[in-house]
Amino acid sequence: MAYVQLVILLALLEFLLFGWAVGSARVRYNVPAPAMSGHPVFERYFRVQMNTLEQLIIFLPSILLFARYINAWAAVALGIIFIIGRGLYFRGYVQEPAARHAGFVLSAIPNVTLFVGALIGVLRAIYLGG
Amino acid sequence: MAYVQLVILLALLEFLLFGWAVGSARVRYNVPAPAMSGHPVFERYFRVQMNTLEQLIIFLPSILLFARYINAWAAVALGIIFIIGRGLYFRGYVQEPAARHAGFVLSAIPNVTLFVGALIGVLRAIYLGG
Amino acid sequence: MAYVQLVILLALLEFLLFGWAVGSARVRYNVPAPAMSGHPVFERYFRVQMNTLEQLIIFLPSILLFARYINAWAAVALGIIFIIGRGLYFRGYVQEPAARHAGFVLSAIPNVTLFVGALIGVLRAIYLGG
Repeated sequence: MAYVQLVILLALLEFLLFGWAVGSARVRYNVPAPAMSGHPVFERYFRVQMNTLEQLIIFLPSILLFARYINAWAAVALGIIFIIGRGLYFRGYVQEPAARHAGFVLSAIPNVTLFVGALIGVLRAIYLGG
Repeated sequence: MAYVQLVILLALLEFLLFGWAVGSARVRYNVPAPAMSGHPVFERYFRVQMNTLEQLIIFLPSILLFARYINAWAAVALGIIFIIGRGLYFRGYVQEPAARHAGFVLSAIPNVTLFVGALIGVLRAIYLGG
Repeated sequence: MAYVQLVILLALLEFLLFGWAVGSARVRYNVPAPAMSGHPVFERYFRVQMNTLEQLIIFLPSILLFARYINAWAAVALGIIFIIGRGLYFRGYVQEPAARHAGFVLSAIPNVTLFVGALIGVLRAIYLGG
């Protein structure tokens, strides 16, 4: 379903922008490549990008299987919450690491929900003879 | 085939648990965010998570293409060995970095097998007119 | 389409080789696990691998959606340019971090093109009633 694919691409667009922010922070805080540390604010940008990558590897298969086996519109809604939560995570983290938790939770809840729904959907398909 | 999807979700569940272990290790070994180093045992947990992410980006497309072009049950079996190997990698690495090799090999062999099988399957599909 | 799958597997093969190069560099420059820093040349290898992982999470969904909604042969061509660009990025970066830019751009252009094309394709499918 094309709306699910659109949400996936928007999540990837957000990740692209996070990567661009890391590149800018590398220049702004004078952390020459290949270093990944050296200025604590640069490290925050880098951690946002890395943590989002860790989340995306769960998100992409989970949203596709959730949409297939549970409900495509619920998958879209959860995906949008995930993207918003990641945006708040970015905003909070670069201001102050302790401020990252709200956005983290707001993106982790839809992500885990997509994952658990996908797991339930696949198990149901197996028991019904998938 | 739903069993292949189940194996994919179980591999992602293991990765989620590794991520949770990194978060706990961050608190336990007192490595405040955004630092990614500062205590050698914390760094082991972090490396398990990162290395597993590096493996998963190979694993996910490979198991799907292997299941499609070679054999779905063989894909399931190799996927289960991969998950067990990653578990041993985690156990070994957090005890002692030198003890990570057995689990690494036990997860790399099924992963490379899935990759090579997928490649053979795709090449065969091309030559047979895919 | 099997040629798109072949390009995906070749991009993953390149990433596997980058990972192998990181492992060799860890031994050659004496950076014992789990450290991710300690020798600037090792760090270059590591950054090539990490940056390629960041690109692949965009590349894989984008090339599939581009092939589906825009054109499969154009997707194959852009994918091959991406792989070549990543190879140049590797070669440049390990020689000298400042030499990484040409390869980075040569892989970023096809990757962003695949992403934008996928987005246009999905939006068109939605407006045409996908």
